[in-house]
Amino acid sequence: MLVNTKSFRTIWQVRGTAPIQIEVIDQTALPHRFSTKVITTDTEMADAISTMVVRGAPLIGVAGAYGMALAAQLDPSDANLKRAAAMLVSARPTAVNLEWGVNKMLAALQAAPQDQRSRTGFEFAAAIAESDVRACELLGHHGARHIERIASGKAKGQPVNVLTHCNAGWLATVDWGTALAPIFAAHLKGIKVHVYVDETRPRNQGLLTAWELRNMGIPFTLIVDNAGGHLMQQGEIDLCLVGSDRTAANGDVANKIGTYLKALAAHDNGVEFYAVVPISSIDFSLTDGGQIPIENRHSQEVLAIAGLDPLTGDPSTITLAPPDTQVTNPAFDVTPARLVTGIVTEFGTFSPDELQSLRTRTD
Amino acid sequence: MLVNTKSFRTIWQVRGTAPIQIEVIDQTALPHRFSTKVITTDTEMADAISTMVVRGAPLIGVAGAYGMALAAQLDPSDANLKRAAAMLVSARPTAVNLEWGVNKMLAALQAAPQDQRSRTGFEFAAAIAESDVRACELLGHHGARHIERIASGKAKGQPVNVLTHCNAGWLATVDWGTALAPIFAAHLKGIKVHVYVDETRPRNQGLLTAWELRNMGIPFTLIVDNAGGHLMQQGEIDLCLVGSDRTAANGDVANKIGTYLKALAAHDNGVEFYAVVPISSIDFSLTDGGQIPIENRHSQEVLAIAGLDPLTGDPSTITLAPPDTQVTNPAFDVTPARLVTGIVTEFGTFSPDELQSLRTRTD
Repeated sequence: MLVNTKSFRTIWQVRGTAPIQIEVIDQTALPHRFSTKVITTDTEMADAISTMVVRGAPLIGVAGAYGMALAAQLDPSDANLKRAAAMLVSARPTAVNLEWGVNKMLAALQAAPQDQRSRTGFEFAAAIAESDVRACELLGHHGARHIERIASGKAKGQPVNVLTHCNAGWLATVDWGTALAPIFAAHLKGIKVHVYVDETRPRNQGLLTAWELRNMGIPFTLIVDNAGGHLMQQGEIDLCLVGSDRTAANGDVANKIGTYLKALAAHDNGVEFYAVVPISSIDFSLTDGGQIPIENRHSQEVLAIAGLDPLTGDPSTITLAPPDTQVTNPAFDVTPARLVTGIVTEFGTFSPDELQSLRTRTD
Repeated sequence: MLVNTKSFRTIWQVRGTAPIQIEVIDQTALPHRFSTKVITTDTEMADAISTMVVRGAPLIGVAGAYGMALAAQLDPSDANLKRAAAMLVSARPTAVNLEWGVNKMLAALQAAPQDQRSRTGFEFAAAIAESDVRACELLGHHGARHIERIASGKAKGQPVNVLTHCNAGWLATVDWGTALAPIFAAHLKGIKVHVYVDETRPRNQGLLTAWELRNMGIPFTLIVDNAGGHLMQQGEIDLCLVGSDRTAANGDVANKIGTYLKALAAHDNGVEFYAVVPISSIDFSLTDGGQIPIENRHSQEVLAIAGLDPLTGDPSTITLAPPDTQVTNPAFDVTPARLVTGIVTEFGTFSPDELQSLRTRTD
């Protein structure tokens, strides 16, 4: 997608270096500053994942895969690969994609002769990245149908109003995004879309969503996380599109903390609510969302907040409450399947109870 | 209530000045700095109300009353009193208490001879302030019964976990508070209470609640507004206590934006949800909450945030998104009566459909 009219992905192999290096957009500096970061070891990749230099369930799956390729480049032994896999998987506990990407790589690398593991690793990771891009394009294609259907029932010139939570845009994937992919696709088809963007405390990933939409020229309104219910009561929202870090086999959706509250409000106001989910995010081994591990993050995310100094324009962090304040900071919640209108996958939209039919499509 | 172990109210008449001056706690400086502000004219009072130097439905009712007394002190003519009343009422549109306090004063002042209006004004405003303190004490008494009942069903030593949104503490009133009054009352009775405090973006009035609880020695945990639903799903919340800026005759409750989302989550998880409401906040002229005007506030509240510079400890404001970002910032939402377990008033707890029986108690 576009950054200042120039096309970017979130992660790529640096051209012409030996040993091979991986480069990523540094998302901790966004939306205030656009910068990239070069990563040369699996440990650096695990660190980039846990500190959210790279973030978003699909992207950290791909980042984990490249982390394994970097590990194989440094030391292709089984012991080293297993160590790297365990370290990478533990960098973020909730998203299933990370485990999925790392384990796929581990199996592929172990199947290759040791002297070919480095090459195999980067080829296989690149294939996972390409497959993520294709999956997100398909999510956009299928999800845009819902926007198109709602647009067809509106007066000419009236936009379809979408509410989204957190950032499930192209920054959360390699390209296109998950929940934002249908918005990009609809926009590129000429359908008028307007997005209500939840700021998404504590980390304000909504500002990443706002940054993406601005770069793509799509109109949006930034709101605090508290406002969405009222806007739905007022008839201001046509549909909700959210991503998912892990979806259980019964259609329970784990996503950024606060998603459940928006799903309740959507249900209470008859607003359609879709989770846009690459099949790699569905964990068929879990019968329901109660089994999804919920990451608790550092209290500092709640006690402080980052932005720009209005005078100098430099990045600046301020504290909101005394450092000894007791905080709990769950990063995700589970939206029960009963509140989910549909789950948009690369194979189309499914009701939560139809999700099981997709089980055979995963490997 | 206590500030550094010293007892304070939020608004008082400065001792021994002529002309009379009113002093208030400057809530825009809290929780980071405790300071007070002297107010000498009705215009300054209207400004203090609209800039939220004083805030909270009951307190701005009392502040409006003192504003009228200051107006009468400067110029007791009917024309001036009517001008002052109109200006004060328009300072904040949602809370009914402001209109209530100002109109009560206007009637009382107009009934008095012109040469006694200044004295009458301050006496009458002080009576309104005292009546607010008594009402809040009664809210605490009746509300604490719910905490006590839940405590009696718990294992010894286990606290009752209350979730609250915004600040409906003593800072929002003259003393005691509304939604926090039952917590203070229960704590003073020796009942173990723990409070989950929503930070309450955009203005983070939850930090005022945290400051009050810290000063009173009551344990609390600060959370982002997104977290409450998840905590209820996990069984971490025993009951919700919120204030109200205006309650309609059918029991629909207007309160700080985001209250509706917590009420939905409480309902979905079988958690009791009480609005703690002095009768002066009930607007029997409105048949339902759809008629309550909802204030839209400045986009700056969403685009910037105030806290402390971690290095210097000085107050500091940072910007979160570019200044040309489109924002909508509704300050309140309406929680439908069907989601409200009970409305705690100074006359006891009523179900929303019993509220009508209180109509004759108001004047």
